[in-house]
Amino acid sequence: MPTEPDIAVEALRDKLTSASRVDKNAIEKDLAFAPKFDASGLITAVTVDADSGEVLMVAYMNEESLAQTLAMGEAVYFSRSRQKLWHKGATSGHTQEVIEIRTDCDQDALVLRVRQKGPGCCHAGYGSCFYRSVPLAAEQTGAALVLHQIADATYNPEDVY
Amino acid sequence: MPTEPDIAVEALRDKLTSASRVDKNAIEKDLAFAPKFDASGLITAVTVDADSGEVLMVAYMNEESLAQTLAMGEAVYFSRSRQKLWHKGATSGHTQEVIEIRTDCDQDALVLRVRQKGPGCCHAGYGSCFYRSVPLAAEQTGAALVLHQIADATYNPEDVY
Repeated sequence: MPTEPDIAVEALRDKLTSASRVDKNAIEKDLAFAPKFDASGLITAVTVDADSGEVLMVAYMNEESLAQTLAMGEAVYFSRSRQKLWHKGATSGHTQEVIEIRTDCDQDALVLRVRQKGPGCCHAGYGSCFYRSVPLAAEQTGAALVLHQIADATYNPEDVY
Repeated sequence: MPTEPDIAVEALRDKLTSASRVDKNAIEKDLAFAPKFDASGLITAVTVDADSGEVLMVAYMNEESLAQTLAMGEAVYFSRSRQKLWHKGATSGHTQEVIEIRTDCDQDALVLRVRQKGPGCCHAGYGSCFYRSVPLAAEQTGAALVLHQIADATYNPEDVY
């Protein structure tokens, strides 16, 4: 279950909404947080393990999910397939404690450094969603591009979902 | 300058284009590379330092840029602002040698593990584009959300661009 937000989510949303993105130079150089949400109202969020640095997943946030994440300290995304807020781990118990959020030069992407609870972040049964690698040039011999499995499953999704 | 591709980029594009995405289960469990490009023809690429694991940047690729990257072994993106292929470092010399590319469960995102040439990947003068962090709940006291600077500049962009 989510912990009680320290600060009203609504107040945080107001701060996100009111931030100006007019001055491109200021966006890059200054310290006002003015995240850019795309035409669908979303910003890309890359989630990495706070300790190992491993990329766990790539997801998206709208203003509401970012405000909830900042208030709660647990990752809340916006599911594009289900078109609704997605408090990660609400079903599986595999929540993500947010240690730090970083933004990039043009403030149109976020990196979440998290402590992942449970055996993994991926609904397919892996610690990270990135459990396969793409063949580079030297290996590309056949008709199709065959991925390499680079991680073992850490749990059985059927036990959780 | 890019090195000569080992394999024709066109052949690689064909392999990317012909991959089937009909079977959702196979996309997650099998080893056929079938990347999902969005309505704009793009896939999200998260670029990390191959040694430290630090996230350097978030960018996008179309089929052509992914094929060129696979063939050349250097990162080639698609610039959304300029709407054209972007061989990273072609102007600055700050190319990215690709060590590994990973894809996620639904194959709609990539992680590039690279060795960054030169003083940094960010046009604003930093090693990583993620040189600022977002205040978490306990620190949110003022009217605006004030970022923290978490990295020093590594070069002067005016010397390069």
